[in-house]
Amino acid sequence: MRLLARNSDPLYVRLAAEFRRQIDGGVLRAGDKLPSIRALKRGRRVSTATVTEAYLRLERDGYVRAQDRSGFYVAQPPARTLPEPHVPNALVPPVPVGISELVAEVLQQTGDAKLVPFGVSTLSSSLLPTARLNRAFRRAATRWPLHSATYGSIRGHMPLRRQLARRALMSGSACDPDDIIVTSGGMDALNLALRAVAAPGDVVAVESPTYFGVLNVLEGLGVRAVEVPADPRSGIDLALLDRTIRRHRVKAVVVMTTCHNPLGSVMSDAAKAELVALTARHDTALIEDGVYAELVYDETYRRPAKAFDRKGLVLFCGSFSKVLAPGLRVGWVEAGRFRDRVEALKGLTSFVTAALPQLAVAELIESGFYDRYVKRLRIRVADQTSRYIQAFSTVFPSGTRMTRPAGGNLVWVQLPNGADGSLLYRRAREQGIGIFPGEIFSAGAKHREFVRVSCGAPWSPAIERAVAALGRLSCELAREPRT
Amino acid sequence: MRLLARNSDPLYVRLAAEFRRQIDGGVLRAGDKLPSIRALKRGRRVSTATVTEAYLRLERDGYVRAQDRSGFYVAQPPARTLPEPHVPNALVPPVPVGISELVAEVLQQTGDAKLVPFGVSTLSSSLLPTARLNRAFRRAATRWPLHSATYGSIRGHMPLRRQLARRALMSGSACDPDDIIVTSGGMDALNLALRAVAAPGDVVAVESPTYFGVLNVLEGLGVRAVEVPADPRSGIDLALLDRTIRRHRVKAVVVMTTCHNPLGSVMSDAAKAELVALTARHDTALIEDGVYAELVYDETYRRPAKAFDRKGLVLFCGSFSKVLAPGLRVGWVEAGRFRDRVEALKGLTSFVTAALPQLAVAELIESGFYDRYVKRLRIRVADQTSRYIQAFSTVFPSGTRMTRPAGGNLVWVQLPNGADGSLLYRRAREQGIGIFPGEIFSAGAKHREFVRVSCGAPWSPAIERAVAALGRLSCELAREPRT
Repeated sequence: MRLLARNSDPLYVRLAAEFRRQIDGGVLRAGDKLPSIRALKRGRRVSTATVTEAYLRLERDGYVRAQDRSGFYVAQPPARTLPEPHVPNALVPPVPVGISELVAEVLQQTGDAKLVPFGVSTLSSSLLPTARLNRAFRRAATRWPLHSATYGSIRGHMPLRRQLARRALMSGSACDPDDIIVTSGGMDALNLALRAVAAPGDVVAVESPTYFGVLNVLEGLGVRAVEVPADPRSGIDLALLDRTIRRHRVKAVVVMTTCHNPLGSVMSDAAKAELVALTARHDTALIEDGVYAELVYDETYRRPAKAFDRKGLVLFCGSFSKVLAPGLRVGWVEAGRFRDRVEALKGLTSFVTAALPQLAVAELIESGFYDRYVKRLRIRVADQTSRYIQAFSTVFPSGTRMTRPAGGNLVWVQLPNGADGSLLYRRAREQGIGIFPGEIFSAGAKHREFVRVSCGAPWSPAIERAVAALGRLSCELAREPRT
Repeated sequence: MRLLARNSDPLYVRLAAEFRRQIDGGVLRAGDKLPSIRALKRGRRVSTATVTEAYLRLERDGYVRAQDRSGFYVAQPPARTLPEPHVPNALVPPVPVGISELVAEVLQQTGDAKLVPFGVSTLSSSLLPTARLNRAFRRAATRWPLHSATYGSIRGHMPLRRQLARRALMSGSACDPDDIIVTSGGMDALNLALRAVAAPGDVVAVESPTYFGVLNVLEGLGVRAVEVPADPRSGIDLALLDRTIRRHRVKAVVVMTTCHNPLGSVMSDAAKAELVALTARHDTALIEDGVYAELVYDETYRRPAKAFDRKGLVLFCGSFSKVLAPGLRVGWVEAGRFRDRVEALKGLTSFVTAALPQLAVAELIESGFYDRYVKRLRIRVADQTSRYIQAFSTVFPSGTRMTRPAGGNLVWVQLPNGADGSLLYRRAREQGIGIFPGEIFSAGAKHREFVRVSCGAPWSPAIERAVAALGRLSCELAREPRT
């Protein structure tokens, strides 16, 4: 959690930072009541929204707690805050990827509505704007009645590309609609981006841990992966990345700069700029996987590495699956100098993307709804994830470590005593709880003592019971002799 | 054109066959008036629909012509019917595929609404049920409001799989909904089916000519293709296929049994059964590309090779792009014993398919609309294509050969004097006419003297002018010295 706010931060971020300083400095103590929203609004001449957002942030970070109809109070410091995982800093050789069998097994959870949803990384449907999305589908079909009567352009439908270009401008990576290639979801985007820059036998650098989907694509392509450690706070280790690129002929680097899966890390603007400069020095393509980027808790960190790209070497991959609706299958690549190659590959492999979902998304963005919705969603996801983390701190065995994400709904949990995350995954599944084993997030079968837990479902008594059950299973496992 | 009808054929097929025999035998001569629909209906005690369909078939085949408000008359025999292309019958060695650069260039036509649409193989939007499809989208969104709020199953949504299984039963290839894997269009289906059965370095047998998309997938996979000649009437040469499989370690065979692209051929049931028996003897997988199968003019030939599959070695690939709407991106694989492998590969590559298009298609089939629509569409496509073929016969240079398709909207034209189809493709494009060059339908750069012409747009003065322009370009080309 970043304690210092900058002048460029929104007002509510600065306001929350002021309170944090007072609480950390002992000016406000556990049990003290915070000023009422109305009082603070008047006293500081700020809007209700600003005060509310500031207080919700403080609550999310565990500084204050809300009491029904009474207001906000300074919280007790958590009895036990679990430390963050340790990051190794060794260089490793490239390895062929071979994890797809376990991934295929794990992914069978995808359609299983009966499992407690700590596995698949999507948000609960109750957080998603389903009614508004259906209205967007109707409006799009009325406005473009012949939407599906032709293939349309391989690049995707212009109304969506125009909106994506407009949003890219807002986040600092200005581009033309023609620079954007719409894809059938984020997986298709990654697939096309990786195929555009790497061929069988090549070496691609990935973060460790990284999203297993990247590893699957590399496995399918026959590309070797070289893993570079990523820190739960600051992201990929830039010094080690530099040495890795120097040592191996690295064709491309895949980095989740904003809301890493599974770490939840968000790189600072300075680190993003340095990452782009570093890869540009080596003339190496940088694939920026930004499918969770909208879920960054502090939107001042939204800017992608692509915004610092001067040589057209960054391929930004986005998706609406994690934010709007997983079943839409609408993603995109902003591919810089690789644009024509990505387009050609799309024509030869996945071909055009379904029309009406593209146009429905375009309508949602154009109407202004999407931006308002994402702002609200960020806060809800932050609150919800914080609630899970608090609960984990009380149920997991002593010695457990876990991340404190700066965005997204994923927590990366390191079990103590080298307990086997894949075993926990299997036992949890037997009890109807879906989690993802850590080893699928590595090309080289690292991270076996980890599991990834998704906090996509709103907190409820049923979720609380499932978290407790997961904690019990972990405690049993941590006590068992290591095999 | 099949002259003999069997007792198992529908009544209108048998009725049309009777008239053909009379015309061919000279009983009815050019200019003779056929019985009025009412008279025949009474005389034969058949329905109006039966008589109408029989007459429309005769008209399509050039046997009769309709005269407004007057009835049907026996037509003049066409002044000049172009012969069908010659098929070589030599065995060839497997070759690595390398056509994707030209294909990528050709596919840029896909989104170009200004080109005369003789290239991309889709039907004109005026033939497609766009209003009914939009109603289906609305109904599906109302019935399943949370359609896109989760990923759903990798196999696809159950309402669609249930309808696909029901239709498979009707066409003789009974299967369970769980045997069907929904895909993001026909290209995704072929991709998954080929990946499921072949690995880099393997040999896969394809028809010559064959759909370039199959060749692209093989190129992407690093699989070598061995080409087996296919006849414009009877389809793949089974004797040569047998010798090819014996000679090379063929991992799979890809065949378009019903409405071949680009030949328009439809294999008989006996040939389909023999094809399945032959591949089964060698334990070779058979990928049946059935994306045009619904467009077979004579629906008695609808039955897929999959219907004769006893060992689970046939992977049937279908799609709604050619029949219902290209921009839907809904296809499927009925993968037999490879089902689990196809499902796992889908999870690792293309991932889940967009939800609402699947559910809209399910609604269209369930309501009964789809079956009625396809019946009408077959006749319209047959009529329209016949019209193009008649026009081609008068404008193409002497010595031209072309197919007489038994299904679909594609005509495969062989230019005389070895004129270069790729050159015709480029010159036509300069004049705003899209056609596809023959060489992309071969792994080994065969078929250079061919072009594929799509007859997807309804006949009109503008189309007539474009056909005439294409004829002129071809005549110029045929007169030029060969380079």
